[in-house]
Amino acid sequence: MNNPVTANGRAYAWPQHPTVVICVDGCEPAYIEQAIAAGLMPNLKAMLARGTDLRADCVVPSFTNPNNLSIVTGVPPAVHGICGNYFIDPASGEEVMMNDPTFLRCGTLLAAFAAAGARIAIVTAKDKLRTLLGHGLPMDSGRVVCFSSEKADRTSVAEHGIADALGFVGLPLPSVYSAELSEFVFAAGCRLLESAPWDLMYLSTSDYIQHKHAPGTPVANAFYAMMDGYLGRLDALGATIAITADHGMKPKHDDAGRPNVVYLQPLLDEWVGADHCRVVLPITDPYVVHHGALGSFAVIHLTSLGDTSMVAARLRLVTGVNEVLERDEACVRFGLPPDREGELIVISESDWTLGTRPDRHDLSQLKEPLRSHGGTSEQRVPLLLNRRSEAPPADRKPRNFDAFSLALNRRLD
Amino acid sequence: MNNPVTANGRAYAWPQHPTVVICVDGCEPAYIEQAIAAGLMPNLKAMLARGTDLRADCVVPSFTNPNNLSIVTGVPPAVHGICGNYFIDPASGEEVMMNDPTFLRCGTLLAAFAAAGARIAIVTAKDKLRTLLGHGLPMDSGRVVCFSSEKADRTSVAEHGIADALGFVGLPLPSVYSAELSEFVFAAGCRLLESAPWDLMYLSTSDYIQHKHAPGTPVANAFYAMMDGYLGRLDALGATIAITADHGMKPKHDDAGRPNVVYLQPLLDEWVGADHCRVVLPITDPYVVHHGALGSFAVIHLTSLGDTSMVAARLRLVTGVNEVLERDEACVRFGLPPDREGELIVISESDWTLGTRPDRHDLSQLKEPLRSHGGTSEQRVPLLLNRRSEAPPADRKPRNFDAFSLALNRRLD
Repeated sequence: MNNPVTANGRAYAWPQHPTVVICVDGCEPAYIEQAIAAGLMPNLKAMLARGTDLRADCVVPSFTNPNNLSIVTGVPPAVHGICGNYFIDPASGEEVMMNDPTFLRCGTLLAAFAAAGARIAIVTAKDKLRTLLGHGLPMDSGRVVCFSSEKADRTSVAEHGIADALGFVGLPLPSVYSAELSEFVFAAGCRLLESAPWDLMYLSTSDYIQHKHAPGTPVANAFYAMMDGYLGRLDALGATIAITADHGMKPKHDDAGRPNVVYLQPLLDEWVGADHCRVVLPITDPYVVHHGALGSFAVIHLTSLGDTSMVAARLRLVTGVNEVLERDEACVRFGLPPDREGELIVISESDWTLGTRPDRHDLSQLKEPLRSHGGTSEQRVPLLLNRRSEAPPADRKPRNFDAFSLALNRRLD
Repeated sequence: MNNPVTANGRAYAWPQHPTVVICVDGCEPAYIEQAIAAGLMPNLKAMLARGTDLRADCVVPSFTNPNNLSIVTGVPPAVHGICGNYFIDPASGEEVMMNDPTFLRCGTLLAAFAAAGARIAIVTAKDKLRTLLGHGLPMDSGRVVCFSSEKADRTSVAEHGIADALGFVGLPLPSVYSAELSEFVFAAGCRLLESAPWDLMYLSTSDYIQHKHAPGTPVANAFYAMMDGYLGRLDALGATIAITADHGMKPKHDDAGRPNVVYLQPLLDEWVGADHCRVVLPITDPYVVHHGALGSFAVIHLTSLGDTSMVAARLRLVTGVNEVLERDEACVRFGLPPDREGELIVISESDWTLGTRPDRHDLSQLKEPLRSHGGTSEQRVPLLLNRRSEAPPADRKPRNFDAFSLALNRRLD
C-alpha cells in the first residue's frame, strides 16, 4: 500500500477505492434536500443512509474559481491565491481574468498524487477552469486526463491526456448554456471509471440550472434526478464518492421579479470622485448570460486611503448592503490574499446584488428572476460521502475544501 | 397647529390625523408578502398601493424588548439602554430581567408628546412590555391609556388610564399563548379609535403564531387575514397607519425537525473552566413555551480578559456559529451599550440557535419544529405606511425605529 501524500501541509491517505469528488456548481443544500424529499434521488438517499451527510462552509467570495481551487488544493485563497474570477492585477493595474495558472500560488493535491504515481481524471463543465485544475499534472504520462464538456470536441493526448473525448463519452457536444453541459461531466466520469481504474477523479459542473431554477421546482428536480442516475452508476462501480459545491445560490429579486441591485460606482463617484475609486466584481467572467455579472460580493479600490473609513461608514447605510469590511479584516475572516484585494470588501444582503453602474450590466439576457451568489448568504453547501466517517469535533466547522480529506481519510483532518 | 415635538434628538411633526404605529411581533416580511399574494390582505394591499412599502433593519439582538424600546424612543439600545430581555446587571452581578424602567436611559417619544398635550394610547399583548412602553406617561391625566391584552381584566384608571379594559374591548380575556392575545390588541386599538380622537397610538402584538407557523401556511395566513380586517377598520377611521416589526423569524431546525442548537457553556467550560465564563441568552423571559429560550444571539462573560481572543477564535470554528464579535466591535456595529454586554457577542447561522447547556432548556413544550430569532438573519422587517412618503436617499437604510418618524414626517429624518 502506498504512503500518504502531503499537499500544502495536509496529509491524504492513498485511495483504497477509486475516489470521486464532485463539485456541484451552485448547489444550495435545499436542491438535494428537496429532490430527495420528492423521491427523485433514491441512489443518493441510500448512499447517505450508510454514509456521511454534513453541511460545510465554502470560501467567500462564494464564486466558482476560488472554491474549485480550494477544493483541489485543500487550502483557502490566502494560500492558493485565486480569490475571484476577475481582479485588478497589482503588477499592471489592469482588470484581468484570474484563470491563468501564473496566478496560482501552490500546487494542487491532484498534482501531488500524480507525482506519487496516481491515476488522475478531471472533467469540468466550462473550459475556463480546466487549465487551473489541471495545473502541474503530467498530461503526457498516460495516467492523467483533464478536459471540459465545453470543448470535448477539441481534445488531444498532449494537452488533455485523451484524444476525442467527445467520441469517448458518446454524447453530443452540449451548449455552454445548458443542463447537458453538466450531464456530460457526469457521463464522462462514469465512462472513465468503467474503462480504467482511476485513483482520483474530480468532476465539476456548471450552475446554469441553479441560476434559473429554485430548489424543488420541476427543472431543478429533473437536474438532480439526472445526477442521481450517474451517482448510482459510480457507486455501483465501487467508488468512494464525495459531493460538495463551490457555493450556494439565492434569489436576488423583489416581489415583482426585478433584480435587487446596489450600483456602487455612482455612489462612490459622488462621494470621492470618479478618478479615485474603482469597483471590481470578481463574479465577472465571459459567461454572464445567466447572472448579468451581478453577485453579492464586490471589491472597492480607493486611491486615497484617507477615504476608506468614510466610504465604509456611508456604504453600511445603503439598503441592500450587509457588510463592509476593510481589507485586513476581510482577509483574516475569509482567508483571502491581501495583495489581491481592494481597500474595502462589500457583501450584500441575501436577496440583493452589487453592481458597478447600470450601463455595465446587460440584464437583457436574464429570462428568469435573478438568482446568484458571492456573499456569505451562499456559504452553506453540502458535504456528502457514500461511506461512514468520523464525526467532526464541535470546534471544527467542515469546509467544502475538506472534501478530498473526508473522502480519503474518513475524517476532517 | 402644534409645534413639532423633539425626543432624543429627533423632531416629529404633530400628528395631522390619528397616527397608529403597529409593531407586529416576529413579522418576517414573507408573512405579509405571502398573505397578500394569497389575496388575504386586501385592505393592506390597497393601503400599500397608495402608500409606502419599505423594508427596514431592526435592532440586533433581534429580540422584542430592545426593538420595542427603539421604536418608541427612535434610537438604538446604545441610547435607551434596553439591550435584551435579560442580562447580567453589572451593579449586582446577578442575571435579571431588563423590564424595569430603572434600566431605561432616555424618555420615549410618546412621553414627549404626552408632555406636549397629546392623547396617547398604548396596547401591548404581553404585560412584560407595558411598564417600559408606558414609562413617563401621565397616567392620571385622562389623556393616556396603556394596558396589555394579557392583564386587560385587571386595569385601573390610576395605573392604566382605563378601568375595565376587558369590558371596554368586549372580547374574552385571551390566553397568553394564543393568536387571540394579538387579536385583542388590534380590537382594542379599533375600539379606542372609534371612541376618542387619539393623537398617537402604539400597538404591539405577540409572536406566538410566528414561532410556530411559517409564512404562507394556513394558520399564519389566517392570522394575517384577521389582522387585515382590523387594518381596514383603522384605515376607514382616517388613521395614518405605520406597520413594522420588532424582528423577523426563521426556521431553526434540521430536516428531521430537531432543533439545531450550539450549547455554548460546555464548550467554554472545557476551554477556560466553568468558573471563568458565563453564557447569557438575552432572549430569556418568563414566556419560553414557544422557543425554549433558544435564539440566535448570545453574550459571553469571561472573567479573564486574556481568554477573549482564544475563545473567539475557537467559537468561530463551531458549526452553527456565524459571527463572534468582541464587545466594542459589536457595540459600534449594532448600537449597543458596552457596559451591559459581555466580552463576546455570538451570532448563530440562520438555521441554528445558541443555548447554554442542555439541562437549562426545556424543549418538551415545543410542539412544532423550532422557529426563532435574535440574530442578523432576522433583521429584515417590513416598514409600511398607508400614506405616500419621500423615497429615502440611497445611503439611508430604513430602520424599524424610524416608524414614528415616517408616519409623522412622511420621510426618514
